[in-house]
Amino acid sequence: MPAGDKKAYEQIKPLLEKIAAKDFENNPCVSYIGAHGAGHFVKMVHNGIEYSIMQQISEIYDILRKIYSLSPDEIADIFKTLNNNKLLKSYLFEIAPHVLTKKDDLNHGNLIDHILDKAKQKGTGAWTSIDAFERGICVSSISEAVSARVLSGEKDLRTKLHQIYNSQEKKEKINQEKFIKLLEDGLFASIITAYAQGFNLIKKASEEENWQINLAETARIWQGGCIIRADLLKKIQLDFQKFPNISHIYEMPEIIEELKKSIEPLKEITTSALKQNIPIPSLTSSLNYFFAFTSSHLPANLIQALRDFFGAHSYERIDKEGLFHTEWKE
Amino acid sequence: MPAGDKKAYEQIKPLLEKIAAKDFENNPCVSYIGAHGAGHFVKMVHNGIEYSIMQQISEIYDILRKIYSLSPDEIADIFKTLNNNKLLKSYLFEIAPHVLTKKDDLNHGNLIDHILDKAKQKGTGAWTSIDAFERGICVSSISEAVSARVLSGEKDLRTKLHQIYNSQEKKEKINQEKFIKLLEDGLFASIITAYAQGFNLIKKASEEENWQINLAETARIWQGGCIIRADLLKKIQLDFQKFPNISHIYEMPEIIEELKKSIEPLKEITTSALKQNIPIPSLTSSLNYFFAFTSSHLPANLIQALRDFFGAHSYERIDKEGLFHTEWKE
Repeated sequence: MPAGDKKAYEQIKPLLEKIAAKDFENNPCVSYIGAHGAGHFVKMVHNGIEYSIMQQISEIYDILRKIYSLSPDEIADIFKTLNNNKLLKSYLFEIAPHVLTKKDDLNHGNLIDHILDKAKQKGTGAWTSIDAFERGICVSSISEAVSARVLSGEKDLRTKLHQIYNSQEKKEKINQEKFIKLLEDGLFASIITAYAQGFNLIKKASEEENWQINLAETARIWQGGCIIRADLLKKIQLDFQKFPNISHIYEMPEIIEELKKSIEPLKEITTSALKQNIPIPSLTSSLNYFFAFTSSHLPANLIQALRDFFGAHSYERIDKEGLFHTEWKE
Repeated sequence: MPAGDKKAYEQIKPLLEKIAAKDFENNPCVSYIGAHGAGHFVKMVHNGIEYSIMQQISEIYDILRKIYSLSPDEIADIFKTLNNNKLLKSYLFEIAPHVLTKKDDLNHGNLIDHILDKAKQKGTGAWTSIDAFERGICVSSISEAVSARVLSGEKDLRTKLHQIYNSQEKKEKINQEKFIKLLEDGLFASIITAYAQGFNLIKKASEEENWQINLAETARIWQGGCIIRADLLKKIQLDFQKFPNISHIYEMPEIIEELKKSIEPLKEITTSALKQNIPIPSLTSSLNYFFAFTSSHLPANLIQALRDFFGAHSYERIDKEGLFHTEWKE
């Protein structure tokens, strides 16, 4: 059927509902999203969020492997613990232990240790990033995950540069038990940020394209069958139902208290990993996004002033309406 | 003249050379870049690098203002100190003190304190980011700078979220004198990374478009008249002349020792700022880029394994050629 054809959708809806996965209320994860490619757009953003969460999982794995020298089986146990946390419980956390513990048929030990560290991509993460730049929306946790896959592909150059810069000093690490507790408490902040960025992009696109996408319904149909299904989507669904005009997931009553508690642990995770020379682009970009979006004053006044200095691009003031230009040089 | 018309360029070259700014050897900053928009492309990437450096400057300003409670005049003095450093000496560091100390004509005190913290953009930074995603190149320090401008525009929502999340705990700060020394030593790593990402994108585009862009010549003509002119472009020019096929600025003999010394201070700057709740997206993305590009082993093997688990996307192995797929579920 042509994309967005609602009549055609209604005709095959009974069939779709029969074969679809179920949400947390046992309703089929099927819905009419909107006309003219709205459904494809939502699926694209779903994949963008998926890039970010997978990257975050891999960053945690990297820390546990390199800093705590844990085996894949031990890391699998930690992911099982994390998946018992109601805020983290999700398909990707659930399957990570299966992937980590799988024995290799062709070589000794666990298969994960014989897989090349070059991540491929089929484009949906990059498309999400590009669309966000075009619409003026920040999806930095997603974009950094896409860029991380790009860098993973540069294996030869990475290996060469590793030889040159290998000797970089490492700092003391946090006690392992404490670090696992930090993961339980801190990953919520970085993961909810990936969802927040994705929903923010869908909201903006829906406004610009006049798609009238129902965000609560989007959060509902992501509860079954898809890769980013997670218990926290129920919270998001309920708050979008109660407050359909809410501007941002950070404003949701169901989210605020949990997010507040999660920032301090995320700070400890990220600063500890950076001190140990572990690249954590998606975790840090989530944290930076939180700090920027909760700042009433950002230093963009200096950027505006510099732009006006060298290019007469003008600036706005806090005490007067209008655009201003200054002759900065005496 | 039509973009890339070399004959037309040769005709007006004498005139261009007369009016152009001069490089560090007093030669005019004029050059034929290549056919079919190559010159426009190089100018676009120039602007992308400019976004990153301006964002980094504004992040430092934000730390000095919010954590050390310094006045614009005091921060101007620190930028003067930084601009005396041979690795940081540049037009943007030179003009920052002028912008910070300018008195306001319409209100009391320094003008910078009356400028609204919403940064505008004309698109070249976003185009650079989009082009990089399309070509599979990581320009994360640039992309994060573009995203930071986007978030600065969300002033109303930021102010609202600030009220909700204001109470986030802050940690102890580094002694001020020590912190300024860290800036002198650590900013080189983040700034050279912005140049490295930009040159990497130009190199890839030149190969894909068959532009045959001379990277040494690009580093030369950026030494005068443009916004990102900086003393370190001389180092970059010389090494591209000596090693025209070098893959990455991180491999340059002129850069390696300085970059090695700069990473530890950059780590201290970034971890300290994150502990103090200051958003530093461009500084941290530079550091993460360095860590990723100097890692012989990234955790992308886990991403590949997860992708093969849920989507049968296949993976490569470290011990055998070819593409592999596993039935992960027992």
